[in-house]
Amino acid sequence: MAQRTSHRDSGCTLARPLDVIGDGWSLLIVRDAFGGLSRFGEFQQSLGVAKNILAARLRALVEHGVLDRVSADKGARAAYVLTDKGRALFPVLAALRQWGDEHCFAPEEQRTRLVDRESGLPPLPIELRASDGRALTARDVAGPGG
Amino acid sequence: MAQRTSHRDSGCTLARPLDVIGDGWSLLIVRDAFGGLSRFGEFQQSLGVAKNILAARLRALVEHGVLDRVSADKGARAAYVLTDKGRALFPVLAALRQWGDEHCFAPEEQRTRLVDRESGLPPLPIELRASDGRALTARDVAGPGG
Repeated sequence: MAQRTSHRDSGCTLARPLDVIGDGWSLLIVRDAFGGLSRFGEFQQSLGVAKNILAARLRALVEHGVLDRVSADKGARAAYVLTDKGRALFPVLAALRQWGDEHCFAPEEQRTRLVDRESGLPPLPIELRASDGRALTARDVAGPGG
Repeated sequence: MAQRTSHRDSGCTLARPLDVIGDGWSLLIVRDAFGGLSRFGEFQQSLGVAKNILAARLRALVEHGVLDRVSADKGARAAYVLTDKGRALFPVLAALRQWGDEHCFAPEEQRTRLVDRESGLPPLPIELRASDGRALTARDVAGPGG
């Protein structure tokens, strides 16, 4: 988008995280960090993104506490590793992947899918559940936009 | 970001949906649509976003099949309503809200939280589960960035 608008002061639990990961690149950087990439050059090669954009996104993810920047020995590039806050994004990535798999591909198209290593099967569709285990839809929850 | 890069041809189930909802505004529009807003002016008032940006995002969400544009009687503004594909974003929004609630607010800060209408309690943290019900972490699943 033409201009980033900050939701820093928003009380909405959806708006504020979008300041942190709500651009096209940040979740892909987080995806690659889950996949074991940690160096600037590795992210750059994986994403094919301009270096200045990647540098800005990495800096923002460090500022927001999603990544830790670990200094290397002199001469070597720093490493970027997920913090606990960053690792906690796993359900967001998984939910988005399941939606993408279901809704953004034609049936015959090749795609990378989530697979449970132990069974070799796809995971169950992610659901929001009440404290007693009931599956919740948008209609079952309160809050603007639920 | 300065330039949108299309992941239209990506086989990654995370990258492709980010083409659809991976900007700062689209998920907030979807949030508001879940909350019952449907008119251009309602979204504009809720989001405080420039009209040209809102128009472009609504058009893109319609093109991607997330919203349906329902023509109104002549003189009235069209309504934008969630499609099945749009409603299927609910777990993504819920997962992002839970992450935001947990990681993007100081304890004392006011925020809008997900609440189960029936019990009045917050839902359980969203988890990815295997077909046999085991909770899965990033390490338990295969695929780049799993």
